[in-house]
Amino acid sequence: MPKYVYLFTEGNASMRNLLGGKGANLAEMTNIGLPVPQGFTVTTEACTKYYADGKTIAPEVEQQIYDAMHKAEEIAGKKFGDINDPFLVSVRSGSRASMPGMMDTILNLGLNDVAVDGLAKLTDNPRFAYDSYRRFIEMFADVVMEVERKHFVAELDAVKAEKGVKGDTDLTAEDMKEVVKRFLAVYKKHKGEDFPQDPKVQLMESIKAVFRSWDNPRANYYRRMNDIPYDWGTAVNVQAMVFGNMGDDSGTGVAFTRNPSTGENEMYGEYLMNAQGEDVVAGIRTPHPIKTMHESMPEVYDQFLAISEKLEKHYRDMQDMEFTIERGKLYMLQTRNGKRTAAAALKIAVDLVNEGLLSEEEAVLKVDPRQLDTLLHPNFDDKALKAATPFATGLPASPGAGAGEIYFTAHGAAAAAKDGKDVILVREETTPEDIEGMDLSKAILTARGGLTSHAAVVARGMGRPAVVGCHDIYIDEEAGKMTTTSGEVFHEGDKISIDGTTGKVYKGLIPTVEASVTGDFATLMGWADKARRLSVRTNADTPKDTQQAVEFGAEGIGLCRTEHMFFEANRIALVREMILADTEAQRREALRKILPMQQKDFEEMFIALQGRPMTVRYLDPPLHEFLPQKNMTEEIEDLARQLNTTADKIVEKIEALHEFNPMMGHRGCRLSVTYPEIAEMQTRAVLQAALKVKKDTGLKIVPELMIPLIGTRKELAYVKSVVMDTAKKIFEEQNDKIEFMVGTMIEIPRACVTADEIAEEAEFFSFGTNDLTQMGFGFSRDDATKFLDSYYEKGILEADPFARLDQNGIGKLVETAITLGRKGRPGIKLGICGEHGGDPSSIEFCHKVGLNYVSCSPFRVPIARLAAAHAAINEKNA
Amino acid sequence: MPKYVYLFTEGNASMRNLLGGKGANLAEMTNIGLPVPQGFTVTTEACTKYYADGKTIAPEVEQQIYDAMHKAEEIAGKKFGDINDPFLVSVRSGSRASMPGMMDTILNLGLNDVAVDGLAKLTDNPRFAYDSYRRFIEMFADVVMEVERKHFVAELDAVKAEKGVKGDTDLTAEDMKEVVKRFLAVYKKHKGEDFPQDPKVQLMESIKAVFRSWDNPRANYYRRMNDIPYDWGTAVNVQAMVFGNMGDDSGTGVAFTRNPSTGENEMYGEYLMNAQGEDVVAGIRTPHPIKTMHESMPEVYDQFLAISEKLEKHYRDMQDMEFTIERGKLYMLQTRNGKRTAAAALKIAVDLVNEGLLSEEEAVLKVDPRQLDTLLHPNFDDKALKAATPFATGLPASPGAGAGEIYFTAHGAAAAAKDGKDVILVREETTPEDIEGMDLSKAILTARGGLTSHAAVVARGMGRPAVVGCHDIYIDEEAGKMTTTSGEVFHEGDKISIDGTTGKVYKGLIPTVEASVTGDFATLMGWADKARRLSVRTNADTPKDTQQAVEFGAEGIGLCRTEHMFFEANRIALVREMILADTEAQRREALRKILPMQQKDFEEMFIALQGRPMTVRYLDPPLHEFLPQKNMTEEIEDLARQLNTTADKIVEKIEALHEFNPMMGHRGCRLSVTYPEIAEMQTRAVLQAALKVKKDTGLKIVPELMIPLIGTRKELAYVKSVVMDTAKKIFEEQNDKIEFMVGTMIEIPRACVTADEIAEEAEFFSFGTNDLTQMGFGFSRDDATKFLDSYYEKGILEADPFARLDQNGIGKLVETAITLGRKGRPGIKLGICGEHGGDPSSIEFCHKVGLNYVSCSPFRVPIARLAAAHAAINEKNA
Repeated sequence: MPKYVYLFTEGNASMRNLLGGKGANLAEMTNIGLPVPQGFTVTTEACTKYYADGKTIAPEVEQQIYDAMHKAEEIAGKKFGDINDPFLVSVRSGSRASMPGMMDTILNLGLNDVAVDGLAKLTDNPRFAYDSYRRFIEMFADVVMEVERKHFVAELDAVKAEKGVKGDTDLTAEDMKEVVKRFLAVYKKHKGEDFPQDPKVQLMESIKAVFRSWDNPRANYYRRMNDIPYDWGTAVNVQAMVFGNMGDDSGTGVAFTRNPSTGENEMYGEYLMNAQGEDVVAGIRTPHPIKTMHESMPEVYDQFLAISEKLEKHYRDMQDMEFTIERGKLYMLQTRNGKRTAAAALKIAVDLVNEGLLSEEEAVLKVDPRQLDTLLHPNFDDKALKAATPFATGLPASPGAGAGEIYFTAHGAAAAAKDGKDVILVREETTPEDIEGMDLSKAILTARGGLTSHAAVVARGMGRPAVVGCHDIYIDEEAGKMTTTSGEVFHEGDKISIDGTTGKVYKGLIPTVEASVTGDFATLMGWADKARRLSVRTNADTPKDTQQAVEFGAEGIGLCRTEHMFFEANRIALVREMILADTEAQRREALRKILPMQQKDFEEMFIALQGRPMTVRYLDPPLHEFLPQKNMTEEIEDLARQLNTTADKIVEKIEALHEFNPMMGHRGCRLSVTYPEIAEMQTRAVLQAALKVKKDTGLKIVPELMIPLIGTRKELAYVKSVVMDTAKKIFEEQNDKIEFMVGTMIEIPRACVTADEIAEEAEFFSFGTNDLTQMGFGFSRDDATKFLDSYYEKGILEADPFARLDQNGIGKLVETAITLGRKGRPGIKLGICGEHGGDPSSIEFCHKVGLNYVSCSPFRVPIARLAAAHAAINEKNA
Repeated sequence: MPKYVYLFTEGNASMRNLLGGKGANLAEMTNIGLPVPQGFTVTTEACTKYYADGKTIAPEVEQQIYDAMHKAEEIAGKKFGDINDPFLVSVRSGSRASMPGMMDTILNLGLNDVAVDGLAKLTDNPRFAYDSYRRFIEMFADVVMEVERKHFVAELDAVKAEKGVKGDTDLTAEDMKEVVKRFLAVYKKHKGEDFPQDPKVQLMESIKAVFRSWDNPRANYYRRMNDIPYDWGTAVNVQAMVFGNMGDDSGTGVAFTRNPSTGENEMYGEYLMNAQGEDVVAGIRTPHPIKTMHESMPEVYDQFLAISEKLEKHYRDMQDMEFTIERGKLYMLQTRNGKRTAAAALKIAVDLVNEGLLSEEEAVLKVDPRQLDTLLHPNFDDKALKAATPFATGLPASPGAGAGEIYFTAHGAAAAAKDGKDVILVREETTPEDIEGMDLSKAILTARGGLTSHAAVVARGMGRPAVVGCHDIYIDEEAGKMTTTSGEVFHEGDKISIDGTTGKVYKGLIPTVEASVTGDFATLMGWADKARRLSVRTNADTPKDTQQAVEFGAEGIGLCRTEHMFFEANRIALVREMILADTEAQRREALRKILPMQQKDFEEMFIALQGRPMTVRYLDPPLHEFLPQKNMTEEIEDLARQLNTTADKIVEKIEALHEFNPMMGHRGCRLSVTYPEIAEMQTRAVLQAALKVKKDTGLKIVPELMIPLIGTRKELAYVKSVVMDTAKKIFEEQNDKIEFMVGTMIEIPRACVTADEIAEEAEFFSFGTNDLTQMGFGFSRDDATKFLDSYYEKGILEADPFARLDQNGIGKLVETAITLGRKGRPGIKLGICGEHGGDPSSIEFCHKVGLNYVSCSPFRVPIARLAAAHAAINEKNA
């Protein structure tokens, strides 16, 4: 029979997959002799089994839990429900990957009508004991039994009113006893049965609740955002309680071995005396900086420093620790590799190499590619910032600049963001329920909480700028307004700017400037480049984007979307003239006028690339995208005047171009088949530009001409023949020639399964995984949002397949195309240019299947370089 | 070096692929000693090579042609260009499959300024000689050199005017000499060079022209319609000319060994004295019945009868023969298995078995499944027909009834048919250019031509009703009207009805009745059923269709589209109520009202099926399809009143349901994921109906519940769990149960490549190849017509992939799904329910890949049965 339960003494840090991060680290800390309240971990496999068994805990698992419980009692020298010294435990989730606040926790488990008196006697503090019991009842009822918390809050308020007091702390021991009595009655009323007195029942129900919480909506959302597979499951940690709220010689705190915002090598954190750990994390009371503990409890502080140092050396990474002091004795409740900002991640990784703790490749793995995003995005324009006066200042919890319209609920912020608005989420404090709204906001502002509050931790993880604990504002969520200490009022939709690096908040939208990358960035990226095998190119359509991408390390252009060049004001008229042409001759005349403009673009881009390769995709979108909408009467009339035709005729053409499913309509290479003169013009634009730049600069240029949306070999053969004939003409005209390649995007499922044939014509493939995902799933990207939420909720999909390549399905089509493509043309050049090209997990897939390069937007180039390095190093280490 | 040219003495009937049908049969007739003008065949491989070599004839092929030409001269004892007895030849195409009139022919080749005098001397008929020469010049210029025929017609008309004569026959030998002179000048004017005098040049250019004609638009259209691959190529037959126009002891004719309309065992055909073969086929002069030749040329007729009998026995099939009598001597110019109506095909096949010439399986192969269509479609209602008086009568060229609006050009008819109109093509006579218009018309009416005219032959092949040679009408194409002998005038768009079985033409639309199938039909289908391995089911949504399909031999329902049941007038309001519901409760209320109606439908269908299986597909289309269009104000207001809501709210909902690409939107199983209550209702409707019919009738019913549009295993698992939970409830409620299966349509590419996983949940797969073709190609069926014509023209696609399964691409996805599906669930039941299920070539594919059944529309069930038999027999014979 498999072992489903491990005492902390039986595990170690390498058992993370089985024990979860928290469980493995509690075991490891136990092993290296640190003061850890003892207990046991129910494994992630037990969680998976729980779901496989139809959400029940099998008898053999239950038995192992009871056995472990007895052993834990022995270790603690206490007994569950003991009238003198009851054994109390916490029950917490702990998955393989850290998911802060996403799942449920139960504290003070083991209390019942008898044990509460034992606790009162032992601590000589009846008020504490009854307070603990009423907290446990409330928490158990809420988390485990789904009795809404508000019923308990109402009862507590009633008692306070009766006693004529305001705060919880004003209630006496006797008052608390009354609260307990009433809470037990509330429980019975809503559940139809007494509050369970048997700690075994309390425990088993709590473990089930933690397992259940793995599947709650906010956990599912968090996993989707962080690429954590559903089938990993969570472990459950049952640990002896220690109390930071036993008086002034007790306390609790959270600390990092280095500064998680900047990476500075300095102890960083906060603590509260006479408090429970949840008080710090939840941000309800504002705690003190950890360093001040040096004065309040010097011995404990020194002990804590020593432990911190030991842990960082042991784990060879910055640690995020939770501790509790119970009557002067220090207990470690948790350690884990700390979350940090991108800048901090870079600095810590480089420092750890310099300190001799890590190799270069190990350091590369310490930085999450997704995080780099924050470094690469704009900050406020310095001049504009200097001219602005902040109306409020809070704690700089997550760096970066964000500006937008304010919303006071996560729900409202999410809805507005989905409507395309730039949104700032402003909250009294955030809760785990706010996760989606936080993710979709440009920045976050809270009035309460410290640097390790929920808002701060989550925002840093997301790379979202955040200012927290901003006491200069007062938020009235109900009224939908925020008032500053100076009396200024902001309503929903008002615009503000937030600087997460300084903690300052400004009125209006402050313009932003490009990010500049620091020395640590360059150092680490250099190590990454040494390690990776995949090339990284960029998707760029302008010389400016090209320049930016080259600065970010792009090794060429993997996708130049030529249609973007068509939308410029002075060109769209010509493009429309071309589309509205009745005859090939008219169409050719319009194309003749477009040619020099498009050629000029390519010349500039070839120069910006300085000899790096460029893949040019031929015109792709359906033609109606270039025309005004049918109901834009004024624009149509203008156009009619310009083109010397009638508005009716233009409307007629717009109607003729209407398609029921434009995504699967007349676009891509289908345009070149029906109007080969467009392909001729584009061939001229690219090749003539290359010839000119070659002549002017001596650069060696080998343009890669990419025909999109190919589904059959003959389709490509036809368009290629147009390209080749045109090239031949150009070379004859100019009495000069250059090398060039003709290839195709693989984005049609049929192309994947006939890639051997297509490769006979194509010198390269570039996977267009956006469209391949659309056609492969039969999901219209523009429409799928309507039902994808249900898919996530019901666990049918774990991630948005447009953001993260569906390796299991669409990936199979890609692999088939690779295998067949190589069969058709050994050594064929392979890349990817869909948006997945900038997604780390998809990049890992691209590495594994052996692509030559990925191509992504300029700002994702560094992310792709790092992700490619991760893939290569992980493969080597495997 | 391969042999590219065969003398008729070197080939035989088995070399059809290499020599084409005509060439192989000329060789075979030569072998069995029949009188055949000798010559040679340039092979289909030479044609393929011509295209591979960039449309040039390679020197080695050219040399072989010259060598064969010399040998043919020797055999004939004549010489090209001889001034006394010039060797003249015809050059004709001949592909593997018969493509009548689709490609080009050149006659009298070998004539030049010198040889024409030789011919005049030899025949002692200068007028004939000059007439032959001018015809050759005109034909060569038109067909080979692309000089438009009208230039020659104009010149001929000019000469006639100058000479004051009306008919060609009124021109004298001297006049014809003048015509020749002018034709040579016309040629020189348009080509800038003299008419080629060297017969070698004439020959080589003519052969190239035939090769080119393989790729002309009408040939491409014909091939697409008849599933003939482009890469087969055509052979070219060069044959010594014989002349049926050398006087009254000469003639030419076309005959069938049995009646191609009815299958009666009687000689059937026509001939013309003093005429060339083209005169009969083109329908310009109305010929005499073949049997009258018994009187005019009894000896020749007896000889012809003997040859006919010999050929039919030799080929063991009805023969279609062309012959020429030159000065009393009979020559066979062609024999081939004759085209015939479906009824004739059945009768001939059954008769040949009874006569001991064929085995049952051989007879099954003699009937083309596509042809059966004509037998299964309606004829005119007898009563209505008796009440009607025809306004015209012609020759009953192709049986069946057709009614619709008249069009006088093939182009106009095709355009109207594409607009969804029922169209009758009315022409003076049809030409090969009319092929598409004929195909898209309901029936064809011509004023001229006989039973073997172009219109008649092609219409019979298509199964299109046709009346030809109708002298009661006069057609003025220019004016767009038809006048009857009684003076009645019909304009374009007027409605008429045509009975191709009787030759009668009626005014207005006569109602039609179902077809009844004859004894030969039943006999042959019985043989087919013995031979086939595939089951044949039907797509049916009503008890009536089900009944019809069962009569046609359907073995069950492969696809019941439940949404069709939703469109009935009394239901659509409820469906709309369901769609417009704001809450699940409202939606459930509407569904509760729909349930008994849908259940009743299923009860009736289960009874109609009498225990045969039924696959029920759950709701598939996007919901907006059930709502009025946004601009249908009145209907929306009605609906608002019915549902006690506002029109604005309904418009808002319609807008909310709008999708950019509905084909890839919120439909299929995605509806069941977002609104599981719909799947619950449908499960209830099917299972409760099955339980009731079981109880009432004792029939054993195993419903097959099919979830559409599945792309992932988890999607199916989720919907299946809804189905299973509902089934459990029903069985508990009723204290009774039945077996049922849950499966899926495979129509999403992703489902094909993950079919192993999906099969773990699915008890059966039914391939929805319509959608699979859409997603696999990325072709929206509703939009693709806009560019598919270009694809056919440019040879990128050979067939409409929605009509004929693209075996090379979409077929690979199907094969992958089959292999993986069987891996996931050995013995999984497999079928197809897309429209390809009724297409013979696709059915052959389904047989090969080992599906259990095909499902098609009721009227295609017999076609599918026969096609399945063909596939099985051909496989056995291979």
